[in-house]
Amino acid sequence: MELRVECPKCGTTVVTYRNPFPTVDVVLIRDGRVLLIHRRNPPEGWALPGGFVDYGESAETAAARELLEETGLTATSLKLLGVYSDPRRDPRFHTFGAVYLGEATGEVKAGDDAADARWWPLDKLPEVVAFDHRRIIQDAVEKI
Amino acid sequence: MELRVECPKCGTTVVTYRNPFPTVDVVLIRDGRVLLIHRRNPPEGWALPGGFVDYGESAETAAARELLEETGLTATSLKLLGVYSDPRRDPRFHTFGAVYLGEATGEVKAGDDAADARWWPLDKLPEVVAFDHRRIIQDAVEKI
Repeated sequence: MELRVECPKCGTTVVTYRNPFPTVDVVLIRDGRVLLIHRRNPPEGWALPGGFVDYGESAETAAARELLEETGLTATSLKLLGVYSDPRRDPRFHTFGAVYLGEATGEVKAGDDAADARWWPLDKLPEVVAFDHRRIIQDAVEKI
Repeated sequence: MELRVECPKCGTTVVTYRNPFPTVDVVLIRDGRVLLIHRRNPPEGWALPGGFVDYGESAETAAARELLEETGLTATSLKLLGVYSDPRRDPRFHTFGAVYLGEATGEVKAGDDAADARWWPLDKLPEVVAFDHRRIIQDAVEKI
């Protein structure tokens, strides 16, 4: 799809191309609890650790980087859970998400885009879970 | 990553953002043979049916669309095989690929970006297989 941006000097519309934005998320489940971060930016709510894949970065590298930045944990295993690419999964724009079931070591400490990071009991998730992450958590529970 | 494009009117550099390009590919295996298409555009060689995901289109929809356009077949099942996102998998730019194991009906007829479409014996693949598709085919064989 075409993306139109404005020339900062003369205001002319410059046409480039727009693709879905590749993202990654990590589901960490331990003792019946899942690790969620509280988002610092809209959309509001709790979400799986994750974010955008940089150009030149593999999905696994991006997943480990986002997990470390947002939760302080170092991934020791990342197994693909699924690809979530429904255009409505993010209210802002179309994201194309690879989601990993992870294992990790370290002490949880929120950072970067995460205002908080906390283990939530699977049977008592927070009221507001952003994006399609509630469904992803269900899929993860079914898989493991 | 930033992407710089030139304003067509005044030549000013306009900065926008560049992300890996989401792609999909479909592995169809039947009676010890895999369906490959001969690429009409560089890079040269035989490849799995597939292509770019449009903005607003899910991965599964894109996979079924590309399969139909390039081989004439209608997908009846698409199961995720893996995500392939090594920045070097495509010599042109960084692609972020969801690959599906498919089943399909119909008569094979090459179309769109495919100059030819043909079933290749798994133990006698063509010499030039584009991208990382030889490895993907191996992964598919191990999975099924």
